[in-house]
Amino acid sequence: MYEWKRFQNRVRRAIVHIHDELVRVRRDLHAHPELAFQEVRTAGIVASCLSRLGLEVRTGVAKTGVVGDLFGRRSGPTVALRADMDALPMQDEKEVTYKSKVDGCMHACGHDAHTAMMLGAAVVLAEMREELPGHVRFLFQPAEEGPGGALPMIEEGALEGVDVIFAQHVNPSLETGYVAVSDGPAMAAVDDFCLTIHGKGGHAAYPHMATDAIQIAAQVIVGLQPLISRQVDPFEPAVVTIGTIEGGKAENIVADQVSMRGTIRTFNRLLRSEIPKRIEEIVGGITSAYGGRFELNIRPGYPALINPSEEVKRITQVAEEVVGANHLLLAPPSMGSEDFAFYLEEVPGCMWWLGAMPAYASIGELTLHHPRFDIDERALAYGVEMLVMSTLAYFFPDFATS
Amino acid sequence: MYEWKRFQNRVRRAIVHIHDELVRVRRDLHAHPELAFQEVRTAGIVASCLSRLGLEVRTGVAKTGVVGDLFGRRSGPTVALRADMDALPMQDEKEVTYKSKVDGCMHACGHDAHTAMMLGAAVVLAEMREELPGHVRFLFQPAEEGPGGALPMIEEGALEGVDVIFAQHVNPSLETGYVAVSDGPAMAAVDDFCLTIHGKGGHAAYPHMATDAIQIAAQVIVGLQPLISRQVDPFEPAVVTIGTIEGGKAENIVADQVSMRGTIRTFNRLLRSEIPKRIEEIVGGITSAYGGRFELNIRPGYPALINPSEEVKRITQVAEEVVGANHLLLAPPSMGSEDFAFYLEEVPGCMWWLGAMPAYASIGELTLHHPRFDIDERALAYGVEMLVMSTLAYFFPDFATS
Amino acid sequence: MYEWKRFQNRVRRAIVHIHDELVRVRRDLHAHPELAFQEVRTAGIVASCLSRLGLEVRTGVAKTGVVGDLFGRRSGPTVALRADMDALPMQDEKEVTYKSKVDGCMHACGHDAHTAMMLGAAVVLAEMREELPGHVRFLFQPAEEGPGGALPMIEEGALEGVDVIFAQHVNPSLETGYVAVSDGPAMAAVDDFCLTIHGKGGHAAYPHMATDAIQIAAQVIVGLQPLISRQVDPFEPAVVTIGTIEGGKAENIVADQVSMRGTIRTFNRLLRSEIPKRIEEIVGGITSAYGGRFELNIRPGYPALINPSEEVKRITQVAEEVVGANHLLLAPPSMGSEDFAFYLEEVPGCMWWLGAMPAYASIGELTLHHPRFDIDERALAYGVEMLVMSTLAYFFPDFATS
Amino acid sequence: MYEWKRFQNRVRRAIVHIHDELVRVRRDLHAHPELAFQEVRTAGIVASCLSRLGLEVRTGVAKTGVVGDLFGRRSGPTVALRADMDALPMQDEKEVTYKSKVDGCMHACGHDAHTAMMLGAAVVLAEMREELPGHVRFLFQPAEEGPGGALPMIEEGALEGVDVIFAQHVNPSLETGYVAVSDGPAMAAVDDFCLTIHGKGGHAAYPHMATDAIQIAAQVIVGLQPLISRQVDPFEPAVVTIGTIEGGKAENIVADQVSMRGTIRTFNRLLRSEIPKRIEEIVGGITSAYGGRFELNIRPGYPALINPSEEVKRITQVAEEVVGANHLLLAPPSMGSEDFAFYLEEVPGCMWWLGAMPAYASIGELTLHHPRFDIDERALAYGVEMLVMSTLAYFFPDFATS
Repeated sequence: MYEWKRFQNRVRRAIVHIHDELVRVRRDLHAHPELAFQEVRTAGIVASCLSRLGLEVRTGVAKTGVVGDLFGRRSGPTVALRADMDALPMQDEKEVTYKSKVDGCMHACGHDAHTAMMLGAAVVLAEMREELPGHVRFLFQPAEEGPGGALPMIEEGALEGVDVIFAQHVNPSLETGYVAVSDGPAMAAVDDFCLTIHGKGGHAAYPHMATDAIQIAAQVIVGLQPLISRQVDPFEPAVVTIGTIEGGKAENIVADQVSMRGTIRTFNRLLRSEIPKRIEEIVGGITSAYGGRFELNIRPGYPALINPSEEVKRITQVAEEVVGANHLLLAPPSMGSEDFAFYLEEVPGCMWWLGAMPAYASIGELTLHHPRFDIDERALAYGVEMLVMSTLAYFFPDFATS
Repeated sequence: MYEWKRFQNRVRRAIVHIHDELVRVRRDLHAHPELAFQEVRTAGIVASCLSRLGLEVRTGVAKTGVVGDLFGRRSGPTVALRADMDALPMQDEKEVTYKSKVDGCMHACGHDAHTAMMLGAAVVLAEMREELPGHVRFLFQPAEEGPGGALPMIEEGALEGVDVIFAQHVNPSLETGYVAVSDGPAMAAVDDFCLTIHGKGGHAAYPHMATDAIQIAAQVIVGLQPLISRQVDPFEPAVVTIGTIEGGKAENIVADQVSMRGTIRTFNRLLRSEIPKRIEEIVGGITSAYGGRFELNIRPGYPALINPSEEVKRITQVAEEVVGANHLLLAPPSMGSEDFAFYLEEVPGCMWWLGAMPAYASIGELTLHHPRFDIDERALAYGVEMLVMSTLAYFFPDFATS
Repeated sequence: MYEWKRFQNRVRRAIVHIHDELVRVRRDLHAHPELAFQEVRTAGIVASCLSRLGLEVRTGVAKTGVVGDLFGRRSGPTVALRADMDALPMQDEKEVTYKSKVDGCMHACGHDAHTAMMLGAAVVLAEMREELPGHVRFLFQPAEEGPGGALPMIEEGALEGVDVIFAQHVNPSLETGYVAVSDGPAMAAVDDFCLTIHGKGGHAAYPHMATDAIQIAAQVIVGLQPLISRQVDPFEPAVVTIGTIEGGKAENIVADQVSMRGTIRTFNRLLRSEIPKRIEEIVGGITSAYGGRFELNIRPGYPALINPSEEVKRITQVAEEVVGANHLLLAPPSMGSEDFAFYLEEVPGCMWWLGAMPAYASIGELTLHHPRFDIDERALAYGVEMLVMSTLAYFFPDFATS
Repeated sequence: MYEWKRFQNRVRRAIVHIHDELVRVRRDLHAHPELAFQEVRTAGIVASCLSRLGLEVRTGVAKTGVVGDLFGRRSGPTVALRADMDALPMQDEKEVTYKSKVDGCMHACGHDAHTAMMLGAAVVLAEMREELPGHVRFLFQPAEEGPGGALPMIEEGALEGVDVIFAQHVNPSLETGYVAVSDGPAMAAVDDFCLTIHGKGGHAAYPHMATDAIQIAAQVIVGLQPLISRQVDPFEPAVVTIGTIEGGKAENIVADQVSMRGTIRTFNRLLRSEIPKRIEEIVGGITSAYGGRFELNIRPGYPALINPSEEVKRITQVAEEVVGANHLLLAPPSMGSEDFAFYLEEVPGCMWWLGAMPAYASIGELTLHHPRFDIDERALAYGVEMLVMSTLAYFFPDFATS
């Protein structure tokens, strides 16, 4: 019989062994960030590493994604691990040797670390291949920051045969050595929209001969507030934000058009499908009140990320072993979003936060998407161990909980 | 040939003769005010006075109105003079011997003076009967303060054969001895409305299960402001006021209904017919935005009072003789209303303001409908002279302007 | 040693014994409802019953409250049980023999049943006196429906020496035989407010010479919506409802005053203290924008009712024994409120929902405060058992969980 | 003694003589438009023409303005005539031989015609120099379309010694051969403003951690509507238009700033000074309601153009002679604006509309500032005659009215 502690010790020794390489790969990726669906160099590094490990590798999945399959000693369940590879269109403003070499492009969300840790997990698990009673699939996806790589990966078969899927996200506000998990709702569904109000232009001195699109837009924005304050169950988190507005040509011309862009955040599925209807109802009523017209275009984004309780329980048990019960936190849900949610709509699984706050930073100083974003690289080892031990915990459930 | 100055002197002497009686009648009416369509005692006094003067008298016109016909020496045009007789449902708060004897009823709009001056004019003109080349009709109407006696008077034939109509209104903010006339638009059209917003009641702690009629009503009131500020020609005076609001049962229940009452003031006919449609459009759009319903009931009131220029010219010439050019003012139009407007929709004519500010009062201290409303009784003589000389000026146009 | 099942059997036999009396008392109280702080007859019945049982009885606590003390065989912890006695100012519209005999007063919130069940528990526990290793305090409080009897009861010493407190509330939407408990937040904090907007009256035709209190009130109501939609954390349940509005005298007068009443519901303490400031900020800003003034009077109500996890665990174990694990539900929190929350601010404890849906009713048909409110009287036995077994579970913790 | 008709005949003959040159000059100017304060070529043509006529010429007045002085036979009053020279930043879209040769610049407001007609009047009046009992000053000003050339012209002495000033404006909606004058208020005062709302940026999913400048801006725009609908005398024309709005960076970011530009139109001086204060009051109140800040920058523009009655009388008499009483209209006031108003704040005078509707156009088809704007050149002769005869009518008042 296998023994859990022995496993963990083996895994830790293996991680020590690859630690310098982990840092090197992470820094190399950090210095060479690539935008959504352009992760060619990154995918190449991933694919060649997986091939070297003897995995079955598919490239070009969802354009630039990579899928690697590690088959264990005998057939059994399939555990998928997922990392995202894309960077953000931001300027790297920190001064480090591995600073982004690409102008206006930066790994400010830690996907470089996610990719490096997944490769680390692949190395460790490949070494244990003979002992694995099943199959591990490594999903390196593009475009998490939008427009989303998870859905096309799934459409191209990434989840075929998969029984469970795990992922982690570095968190620069959580101290290194900590893990945090949300039980149930973890991240919100997001849907974006464009709203254009059409009036009728005219001279600013003769408003009665025009239809003032700015006045109507203002009534619409004001009129949308009761959607949240009066029409949504107070126990259901929901946000409707109008983030941009633009309209009119000159101070002495009545504006004939105002364009707005906004975002909707929800958790509840029913509410998610209801809010666009309510927006349309409110905008329609108010524009008709003043003889205006509107166009509303809602682009469905990522669903809510809900960690099923059974997998949360598994991951908390794993984390208690990896970081210790005192370093395991229950994370409150967040109104942010993640396309990992698409995978969890198909199969069970869990995503957790991996503490990676640099030693020099105070809590909350460095946030995701910060122009000087960086991680504490000591987190890499914890991350690899979490990925590997979660996989093993799924393969050996009785063992893990004994 | 007649001579104008001689006429005026005769008229003035006649007025001096009846002056004490004028005051007595006015005070008697002031002490015994009667509400709209209940002017029984007043009508009785009027009718018996007119009968004594030998006029043809019809009573019960428009319920409590009185029509008196004075036929001159020979047939000719018909000049109508109009006075209103009704009092207001207010408490008289002043201390004078002729204070209202009726609790909660008061002549706070000077209709007692209007009636007394008309009787005075009847006395003076009756004495000149043999010299009049036409016919004078005295219209004593009920219910000017609402719901309106002019329209039923007209429907019962009050204007049949009438060529021109004159009326005056005492003004406690205008010094005694002054006359003011508006050229063209003088007083606004008025239309009242009831607006009820229907939502759906519920517990205040669960707004999403109810439809909050108070929230909708607030959006509607706010949403009605652009009607005036953006949809009406800035050169067209217009007012929409919501004067009362009431809704909801308790602080912890979402209101299922809100009732409002309001008034619309306009001059332009097209605008008058347009505003109710716009109100309906705005209220309809906004209530539908939130799943509410509404009932809007608009009660047409008095039209705008427009003095035609030709008669304004006549009256200003008369007033120059009666009070002197220095005491004749051009009155700006007012957003107030008068059912004399109905007569002017049928025949030419003019209404003017008669200065009647008590000596003890400062300008603007006593307004129409003030609980201590009173007039300077020296105004009565000017008022009788204005009525008589206006009538004569119509009968003898060449003479008057020579 | 004691045995749990034996205890339960004894309790159940005792309840069977008093069942008819339970129903009789409940119906008697139902037929003779008394409003807040007027529970004289009810308190009399309670006090004489407790005295007969040999308890130490204090009456006149918080005006009409009753406190009964049952001292067990030996000193030990003190368990408090709480029932509320007041009825509502509503008309009883159902047709039953025990229908309210008091016009406009009715037990529409089940406090009659709460009182009866507490008396039942007192009977049962008094019989077991010799075996109780501690002290049971029975709190019969007035005025739960407002203005609140819990706080004055506490101020007059009701919780002195108390270690834990339990209470239950009948629920006509939950099937008889079920118990539901909220873990943590159970019911919201409630604070009511009166808001008066002062403008300046005037004629409706001259809005610019007045300050329109209705227009300002509408802007204020509209302007309060973003408080919830934009200023409150989407994960924090909060409601601000304006339930009543009243202002203005006539359609042709600009309103000089509008009065509103409303309620605030929150869970988070910080948010509870923050919202009144935000309301004041918004109302202040908007009234000043239009030259108006306001008075805002916020009356602090009940705090949020938070069941501490340890006591929730205890009660769920008890309920699993009383109604069975399949009939035990996790209740979502509610935006309603309960002054039991005041006790839980002082000592640990738990309040649970007791299923009492009449057999003839469908789910949600009969709600609390419904004019035909009634309960399934079979619930009374479950309620007594829950109260007694919870008390015993506290006295014998090891035993209960073994 | 002079005879009026003889004068007029002489003037008309002189105009016939210069007619072709008038058209040539107007077309040359039309083809070579120049923007505000860049009217170098135009000013050169004007100055050399005036010099050739023997006038005293000052150039460089208010940068690019030209002042010409024609001294009559003997000293007497000074009559000023004014024309504006600047073009608009618009693309000329019509197809004529004299189409603008300057890309993005066009005489779409008829200033080319104004300049040509003034030169024509200078020619005619210079010929009559020996008979003029006074002095004529020709003011060719820059930048009427903004930022305004009248005020700097006045500051540099253009009105020194001037007794009266006249100007005309072509009107493509008024048939050729017509003249229209407003008695009293003719064109509105205009003041422009920039309004910036400052909030605090943040993630769109966490509105409570930000201060949403778009939401505040919407409340402000909605909240400004009652300024016109409730705070302004319904008889006072006034407009506040917000013509442009812009704010926010992305749909998922709460906007930290919104910028708006707008215009205020009034006639009444007191109201003109009051409205900016009211805007500040409303914007201040509402931004403070939500913890935002604002900057409001109001740039005073042109005052209201008020034609004094005495000069209106003079011009209507002149126009009756020039175009005939049937072709003389009373123009309603307009909410548009004109910097000629600055001159009328200093000296009496009058501006009139000169009918210039092209034969091919229907009424209202071609408006001022239309991209295919053109005039009926037959209007040029009427315009010269109006300018010359108005000057003569001032010099010979008895004569003109006899």
